[in-house]
Amino acid sequence: MATAGKVIKCKAAVAWEPNKPLVIEDIEVAPPQANEVRIKIVATSVCHTDLYQLFECKNKDGFPIILGHEAAGIVESVGPGVTEFQPGDKVIPLSISNCRECRFCKSPKTNQCDRGWATRGYDIMAGPDSRFTCKGKKVLQVMGNGTFSQYTVVDQMAVAKIDPSAPLDKVCLIGCGICTGYGAAVNTAKVEPGSTCAVFGLGAVGLAAVMGCKAAGAKKIFAVDINPEKFEKAKVFGATDFVNPKDYDKPISQVLAEMTNGGVDYSLECVGNVEVMRSALESCVKGWGVSVLVGFTNLHDFAARPIQLIAGRTWKGSHLGGYKVKDGVPELVKAYLDKKLKVDEFITHNMTLDQVNDAIELMKHGKCIRTVLSVSPQ
Amino acid sequence: MATAGKVIKCKAAVAWEPNKPLVIEDIEVAPPQANEVRIKIVATSVCHTDLYQLFECKNKDGFPIILGHEAAGIVESVGPGVTEFQPGDKVIPLSISNCRECRFCKSPKTNQCDRGWATRGYDIMAGPDSRFTCKGKKVLQVMGNGTFSQYTVVDQMAVAKIDPSAPLDKVCLIGCGICTGYGAAVNTAKVEPGSTCAVFGLGAVGLAAVMGCKAAGAKKIFAVDINPEKFEKAKVFGATDFVNPKDYDKPISQVLAEMTNGGVDYSLECVGNVEVMRSALESCVKGWGVSVLVGFTNLHDFAARPIQLIAGRTWKGSHLGGYKVKDGVPELVKAYLDKKLKVDEFITHNMTLDQVNDAIELMKHGKCIRTVLSVSPQ
Repeated sequence: MATAGKVIKCKAAVAWEPNKPLVIEDIEVAPPQANEVRIKIVATSVCHTDLYQLFECKNKDGFPIILGHEAAGIVESVGPGVTEFQPGDKVIPLSISNCRECRFCKSPKTNQCDRGWATRGYDIMAGPDSRFTCKGKKVLQVMGNGTFSQYTVVDQMAVAKIDPSAPLDKVCLIGCGICTGYGAAVNTAKVEPGSTCAVFGLGAVGLAAVMGCKAAGAKKIFAVDINPEKFEKAKVFGATDFVNPKDYDKPISQVLAEMTNGGVDYSLECVGNVEVMRSALESCVKGWGVSVLVGFTNLHDFAARPIQLIAGRTWKGSHLGGYKVKDGVPELVKAYLDKKLKVDEFITHNMTLDQVNDAIELMKHGKCIRTVLSVSPQ
Repeated sequence: MATAGKVIKCKAAVAWEPNKPLVIEDIEVAPPQANEVRIKIVATSVCHTDLYQLFECKNKDGFPIILGHEAAGIVESVGPGVTEFQPGDKVIPLSISNCRECRFCKSPKTNQCDRGWATRGYDIMAGPDSRFTCKGKKVLQVMGNGTFSQYTVVDQMAVAKIDPSAPLDKVCLIGCGICTGYGAAVNTAKVEPGSTCAVFGLGAVGLAAVMGCKAAGAKKIFAVDINPEKFEKAKVFGATDFVNPKDYDKPISQVLAEMTNGGVDYSLECVGNVEVMRSALESCVKGWGVSVLVGFTNLHDFAARPIQLIAGRTWKGSHLGGYKVKDGVPELVKAYLDKKLKVDEFITHNMTLDQVNDAIELMKHGKCIRTVLSVSPQ
């Protein structure tokens, strides 16, 4: 491409400081360095973790930053040492790395990786390095991505090549929300056929978790949300029962225990709220109940009484659904193309990058499941 | 026996109220009712959970009570419907039930049971029913046992028949402390060969956990305690390394992470302290680290930051080591008789029931591992 090896000037939405609307700016995107891939972002969606960085995790050192990490695009150019990707490849950038070489990547037990931004902690949702500059200032890339930009540069260990027939404005959802929820059910909780599940929070991650529970053969899937407007959508993904904690005077864990003879076999917390994490654990049956933290937050402690675990419950967490992402994400794209995975049903709104603040407001107020932003023309 | 069907008058140590020394009293032990077994207690030891009930869990409704739940004895008589036991059988009373009929007992996943005192909660460490009276008052049985008494009555679903050649003044330790710690390593954590473990707290439960880690083939076993006097004993059970948190200015989780390239594969909390539970979790490696709550407490929340689990750690709990106790305890007794399990090495003191307050003081101040009290002559 004519742009290879050169700085690209393009449009991006910059978060200059916490709590403020993003600003569409002209930015510079440096060429990819060794082992990096520069990607033209075709479509991106807004995930709750972008809002977490903007509104909750108010660490000043995390700004200015370009948000966005649930996206799909086309390789524009590659840096030295990149052999897995070529210009023109359709790809999904990943918010965790998968170097395939470290002891974590080599273990079948985990999808964690010893490299990438996430090895350094989550106080700032980005590594210290970036290929973005704007008005002479370095601008961070959220989770090593930064897809609210027409172009971005990502380490090759955090990029997945996908089927060239995949529609980018749909499969952009798979790289974060869908793989996170779906995988939390099938890989982390390891939901068994005939079991009883409860999914707390019916955003995209929660709905994907419902879909994962159904795919795993759950008999009963309780969809739990304080917004009853979400229940119709949950039914589409396989939920069998709907519980609104606001309809009861007693704790939701007690309500579910009464409905299920002692509690559910699996619960998945898809909100990112420490009180809900507690409720989800307490909603599990003693003896073998498994509760999984799926929604992301890290500002407060989650907690419970020791007897909850001593009586046989297990507390786990899931990160991108436990998928080794470089393999898992392309497989989920394939499943979508084979009509074995729902994706279109998550998309409630389509907008363009310059409407990103409207998309953020929709999510903040629970008025969307996913808004897909068109970024660059294909 | 001449006593069958009659009230037995005998000696017992009664806890009349929290925080006070036990009082040796003449008590009445009613005959066993349907499905119950009256047991002459030959030997009992003092476990930390007895101290928990006496000094920490200060619920007035839990008194007066007869403590003691780690014991061995001989069946004196049985109530109607009991076919599994006969007078003269050597038995170990159990602090959780194992009815063999409920959905928990029938599941291979758990040793919880849907019957017995523990189904009602842990605010009072006893069920409402009791066969003990003293001075005209009902006296509770801690955890359905109450073995600081020459005789006690226990539901048959909480009694294990053991090899008639077993020395009761030794195997009395197996019913609680040893099965709890050993099983937490082999059954709950499922320690793998070649792995790295950390055991927090080197009382009897912790030492049994060390022994379990070694039996499971752990390569490194870090024994963690603030009392360095425990380290020599830990070596006997298989510990390879010793860490005293008081020797460091930084958190023990960081110390262990530096010693192990990121944290241990398994950690076992054998203290019953919520801050230590947090340290134990944080001492595990991301990706696959498993931390198990073994020490009992339920007065405060345990807590951690969500990223600890989201990054791939698992938090579990163990109750009596995950053993289905009616089978597991006799098997451990057999392993001891076959010299495959250490028991004698836990016993640091031998006393008689009337010295029970001395035994409690020794434990309270960390001056013993286990004190065995001789209760009734065989």
